Amino acid sequence: MGAAQSFRELCDRTKNTNVRLSLPAVCIVWQTAMIILFGVFIRYNEESDTHWVEYRKENNLSDIQNDFYFRYPSFQDVHVMIFVGFGFLMTFLQRYSFGAVGFNFLIAAFGLQWALLMQGWFHSLDYTDGKIKIGVENLINADFCVAGCLIAYGAVLGKVSPVQLLVLTLFGITLFAVEEYIILDLIHAKDAGGSMVIHTFGGYYGLSISWMLYRPNLDQSNRLQSSVYHSDVFAMIGTLFLWMFWPSFNSAITDHGDGQHRAAINTYLALASTVLTTVAVSSLFQKHGKLDMVHIQNSTLAGGVAVGTAAEFMLMPYGSLIVGFCCGIISTLGYIFLTPFMEKYLKIQDTCGIHNLHAMPGVIGGIVGAITAAAATESVYGAEGLRNTFDFEGEFADRSTSKQGGHQAAGLCVAICFGVGGGILVGFILRLPIWGDPADDNCFNDEPYWELPEDEEVVPPMLHYNNHMHNKEIDFHTDWTISHS
Amino acid sequence: MGAAQSFRELCDRTKNTNVRLSLPAVCIVWQTAMIILFGVFIRYNEESDTHWVEYRKENNLSDIQNDFYFRYPSFQDVHVMIFVGFGFLMTFLQRYSFGAVGFNFLIAAFGLQWALLMQGWFHSLDYTDGKIKIGVENLINADFCVAGCLIAYGAVLGKVSPVQLLVLTLFGITLFAVEEYIILDLIHAKDAGGSMVIHTFGGYYGLSISWMLYRPNLDQSNRLQSSVYHSDVFAMIGTLFLWMFWPSFNSAITDHGDGQHRAAINTYLALASTVLTTVAVSSLFQKHGKLDMVHIQNSTLAGGVAVGTAAEFMLMPYGSLIVGFCCGIISTLGYIFLTPFMEKYLKIQDTCGIHNLHAMPGVIGGIVGAITAAAATESVYGAEGLRNTFDFEGEFADRSTSKQGGHQAAGLCVAICFGVGGGILVGFILRLPIWGDPADDNCFNDEPYWELPEDEEVVPPMLHYNNHMHNKEIDFHTDWTISHS
Amino acid sequence: MGAAQSFRELCDRTKNTNVRLSLPAVCIVWQTAMIILFGVFIRYNEESDTHWVEYRKENNLSDIQNDFYFRYPSFQDVHVMIFVGFGFLMTFLQRYSFGAVGFNFLIAAFGLQWALLMQGWFHSLDYTDGKIKIGVENLINADFCVAGCLIAYGAVLGKVSPVQLLVLTLFGITLFAVEEYIILDLIHAKDAGGSMVIHTFGGYYGLSISWMLYRPNLDQSNRLQSSVYHSDVFAMIGTLFLWMFWPSFNSAITDHGDGQHRAAINTYLALASTVLTTVAVSSLFQKHGKLDMVHIQNSTLAGGVAVGTAAEFMLMPYGSLIVGFCCGIISTLGYIFLTPFMEKYLKIQDTCGIHNLHAMPGVIGGIVGAITAAAATESVYGAEGLRNTFDFEGEFADRSTSKQGGHQAAGLCVAICFGVGGGILVGFILRLPIWGDPADDNCFNDEPYWELPEDEEVVPPMLHYNNHMHNKEIDFHTDWTISHS
Repeated sequence: MGAAQSFRELCDRTKNTNVRLSLPAVCIVWQTAMIILFGVFIRYNEESDTHWVEYRKENNLSDIQNDFYFRYPSFQDVHVMIFVGFGFLMTFLQRYSFGAVGFNFLIAAFGLQWALLMQGWFHSLDYTDGKIKIGVENLINADFCVAGCLIAYGAVLGKVSPVQLLVLTLFGITLFAVEEYIILDLIHAKDAGGSMVIHTFGGYYGLSISWMLYRPNLDQSNRLQSSVYHSDVFAMIGTLFLWMFWPSFNSAITDHGDGQHRAAINTYLALASTVLTTVAVSSLFQKHGKLDMVHIQNSTLAGGVAVGTAAEFMLMPYGSLIVGFCCGIISTLGYIFLTPFMEKYLKIQDTCGIHNLHAMPGVIGGIVGAITAAAATESVYGAEGLRNTFDFEGEFADRSTSKQGGHQAAGLCVAICFGVGGGILVGFILRLPIWGDPADDNCFNDEPYWELPEDEEVVPPMLHYNNHMHNKEIDFHTDWTISHS
Repeated sequence: MGAAQSFRELCDRTKNTNVRLSLPAVCIVWQTAMIILFGVFIRYNEESDTHWVEYRKENNLSDIQNDFYFRYPSFQDVHVMIFVGFGFLMTFLQRYSFGAVGFNFLIAAFGLQWALLMQGWFHSLDYTDGKIKIGVENLINADFCVAGCLIAYGAVLGKVSPVQLLVLTLFGITLFAVEEYIILDLIHAKDAGGSMVIHTFGGYYGLSISWMLYRPNLDQSNRLQSSVYHSDVFAMIGTLFLWMFWPSFNSAITDHGDGQHRAAINTYLALASTVLTTVAVSSLFQKHGKLDMVHIQNSTLAGGVAVGTAAEFMLMPYGSLIVGFCCGIISTLGYIFLTPFMEKYLKIQDTCGIHNLHAMPGVIGGIVGAITAAAATESVYGAEGLRNTFDFEGEFADRSTSKQGGHQAAGLCVAICFGVGGGILVGFILRLPIWGDPADDNCFNDEPYWELPEDEEVVPPMLHYNNHMHNKEIDFHTDWTISHS
Repeated sequence: MGAAQSFRELCDRTKNTNVRLSLPAVCIVWQTAMIILFGVFIRYNEESDTHWVEYRKENNLSDIQNDFYFRYPSFQDVHVMIFVGFGFLMTFLQRYSFGAVGFNFLIAAFGLQWALLMQGWFHSLDYTDGKIKIGVENLINADFCVAGCLIAYGAVLGKVSPVQLLVLTLFGITLFAVEEYIILDLIHAKDAGGSMVIHTFGGYYGLSISWMLYRPNLDQSNRLQSSVYHSDVFAMIGTLFLWMFWPSFNSAITDHGDGQHRAAINTYLALASTVLTTVAVSSLFQKHGKLDMVHIQNSTLAGGVAVGTAAEFMLMPYGSLIVGFCCGIISTLGYIFLTPFMEKYLKIQDTCGIHNLHAMPGVIGGIVGAITAAAATESVYGAEGLRNTFDFEGEFADRSTSKQGGHQAAGLCVAICFGVGGGILVGFILRLPIWGDPADDNCFNDEPYWELPEDEEVVPPMLHYNNHMHNKEIDFHTDWTISHS
């Protein structure tokens, strides 16, 4: 224990990571604010209110036609992606699993409440009584909104304090809601799976923040910025749940009937072909053709991101396969070449490589969406189908598909701008020396923010010792400190 | 190996944990009894029987209106909570993961069969032919019934034999079915998510058993009554699946339509706010403000327990947040102050702290339910909505909401009485020296009941052994000692 | 690190496991072929096409009656079984978790695309335009088809290269589609959960391949052909998700309404009783009555396999329990006696014991199906129910149930023949010395095909060393080799 003790003290000297006041304060105050705001603004909508019985009879509906039964299974899948998917995907670091799962849990739980309010004001406000009326679709959208911030977390994983993450989330959700309103309502672009709204925004938001928080001496934490065998297996739990449930993600809020059906099929296919090209490139660029777990854990998901926008369009099964094919290659190459380049020359330290998994595929998804929309014809969609798919109704009744394509592209630009601009702004705020972030030699480590079980805490350095040195005499304390300095 | 060998022999000498005859005997005999009883009593109901085709046409229904499509997705989520949720939540101990997941699996698999019979006799008996007619709702209720026993398992985790657990389950299910019948049918209290029926009963049932099985020398197993890094990560799998699917748990058997919809929303919100207050209190009471995994793994779930009863009422979104807010605080404080107090002064050893996660929040849930019911007004619910929500039909047609509130409170008392009383009774039975439970110095250890992989098997005893050896020569063993003392 | 290095070089010398050219080539070429074939053949069906809006109105349907809402929740559960269930079930080996999850991921992702084509040509070809029209049911069937190959993978786990697995899958899917067409369409046997089509075929397919690839010196890899504590816990994730979602597997493509409802209930019950008998036998045959994780991980699933065919019939709840009861016993005994026997005398090395989990229970399931079908009477099923359940329509309108029983048995034979025959054929191909499979002393090891994290690679031997010797001087190289030879 003495060793661990002195080590902790060492850290505390170099930088104060004590969040004993700030973290509880932020949690309590913000949660209290949520309660007040919910009290003032949020009510049940007609499908989750006890008046549904009357509503149902007036509209001659069956209970099964309550939106709950159209969307709840997808909602639960999305929920799993947010908490287990994102959470475990980030457990790959050998000593940051608590932070990965735990902080992901914390910011998602706060984010979804704030998202219900922000998105509610923009989309679900009932002007008759000034209340936000929520149902299952709002819950899904709140989870989507949170996803943007969890993506950003991936870029700064292990380098920030929980308080910083909460700030990142507060601003991230706010920016998201505005950006989403502009893209979906004003520009009237379609983005069912959020290639633009969620992944492009979230990706660039996180990368800009990471750029603002650049740590020149991060290499002092190199020993911990790697995985161990079982942490890679834990990460595969996240990968697989994201991969399996992505069809639900992209189809969760699409039109009832064929819309959800088609979006699920397209996503299922895109993801399948991504896996093969990821494996191909991963093997091709490693010595002895060995596969790299980083690629399998991340790039296999790129296809799901890239069909996000076009999933509900008539992308055609082969179209989905092509999108997945390209993204598997691009994303894996990104991990091999781009990530090191960005760190070295652009000063962007991207722990999880979100640029390869979210930002790039998100942009591709936006472009694919624009092209597919512009190419849509009545002969393929059918008159009514075309109208339904692109919501050419009301003020947009006479919009042409080519015009729609242009608006899709415009939406993509908005997402990028909000991501970069918002990230720089928030990054500036997070640079204030008040947030209790870890020292450069103590990143990727659960030790500053978590009570760790004793024995495990001691094992890794000891192994290091036996690895790297051939010293005959053995004094536990010595080699312990050696291995850590 | 020598160390492990002698260590094992030591255990075997002190107490006989050999269940080679008792365990197979109980499993085979009880399973055979199930087959016979199912043969005599259990049949398919009209929605799972081949006659559904005719039934459907007579009642002019569509296939999609089969209860299966209303409830099956929720059932599957509940099923995951029972087997993965409860199972993995208990894997946090460094050397009891097999027992946690494996015995949870065993008793749940037995319990759900016995529950189908017990609950069937009380609720689904068709008096025309004396058969129990089952459908998906019965499966959900069986899983609920099992949950009560799994909660109780949490209190005695690591201190009992699988045979004792099966006995605990047999009586637990029986008591549950009676208690449930009294509360739901006779008292006509509502308890959709089982705050009273499941959590309060299960919690006090387990605590009373643990009190009856008090082990004064349990500290001899201290070295194993802690987690290691990756066992805490495994436990988070359980936590997250419980947390994510809790909305399905509380909405699984509520009314079709708005009932299920509203229950899911309320639970989703209550759980979200619990996470923030849990983090706040956990950080506030640890030195350096570090988070404790025990709190994150358990207290974050308290909100789901506490909205169990009121989830289907018009609790309002802010009401759910308030309930979650309070429970996160109370549950975490419970882990910090109450659990040690109970062990020291009340002689209740509660391995998983079920008092903080289930018993207390369950009671709170019962009270919240009583208040919400008493406060229900026709202006909020609508005449028909009020009738539907509280089933004011038949003999209860003219019950007032204030009267309903009183009956809710009465139901809570019944749950507590059955839990405590039943626990003392069963605890008395489990104290018989015939069950093969482990010695005080061999608790929280998979070794007595599981064939363990070789190399892993050697580590803990070695640590133990080296801890107690005071060897002068400095070799690997001694550093271990240092690192542990 | 030198040690690991030299060890790697050693392997590479003895046998070339470099797949740097073959693996990428196969992935890229085959995926490209898929894109072309999908472009030529595959389109959306009327329920996933934008024309659904018109279709729906013509047929006076509600959106909720789109097949998507009948099957999507089951599909997602099946999807989880394929990728997490099968993948993690095979992570039990101490050093083959990457291969287990990763290669399972790879071949499933390829297999489902090829399955959509193969099954499509046989079942979903629209003769008006020569296109295969796909919807959610096709996705489920593709996952089913893949399951057959994943079962086969279990027999050769750790002994083949990823390229061999892809070849195994290509032929496996092809054989599956033909066999399925003969059994379901020509013979008109019913097999909802695929006891025959999936498990019997897949089981014997894998066993025959393993027999063809017999390795007399496999004992050189003994040190790695065992689990460690946490790899067994990882495997339980797979076990539980398979166990929990099996009701969805067996009910995923059964008739709407009572068909799905009944299949889920039967599977739920069969699996429950399997757990108890598995525990009983496992304890009965181990010294000190200790449970063996291998049995808990695998035999507890046998009941789900064995009710696969009869799940949609009126098997009756007690009938399901009986099937599960027997299979738990037979499967566990298989692991204890049959697997060693097969390896020693039949030269069949079955890594995961698929003979006990899939082949045998599959055959039992086929027999149960035949008997249940032959015993079906109009008094039990009802005239219309009988017709619906067995699809006695069109050319089969006047088939008797006894005749149906005979055809079920015939179907079982076809499955066995295709499995054995196909396995021998494919095994012959896989024996070509071009596939980069590992040497006998390097099986069950991720090292040949995966970049492994450094330190973990060193852990196990070191523990061994410190256990077995009390030698003062530490020469890393020595003890490394000692502990491994």
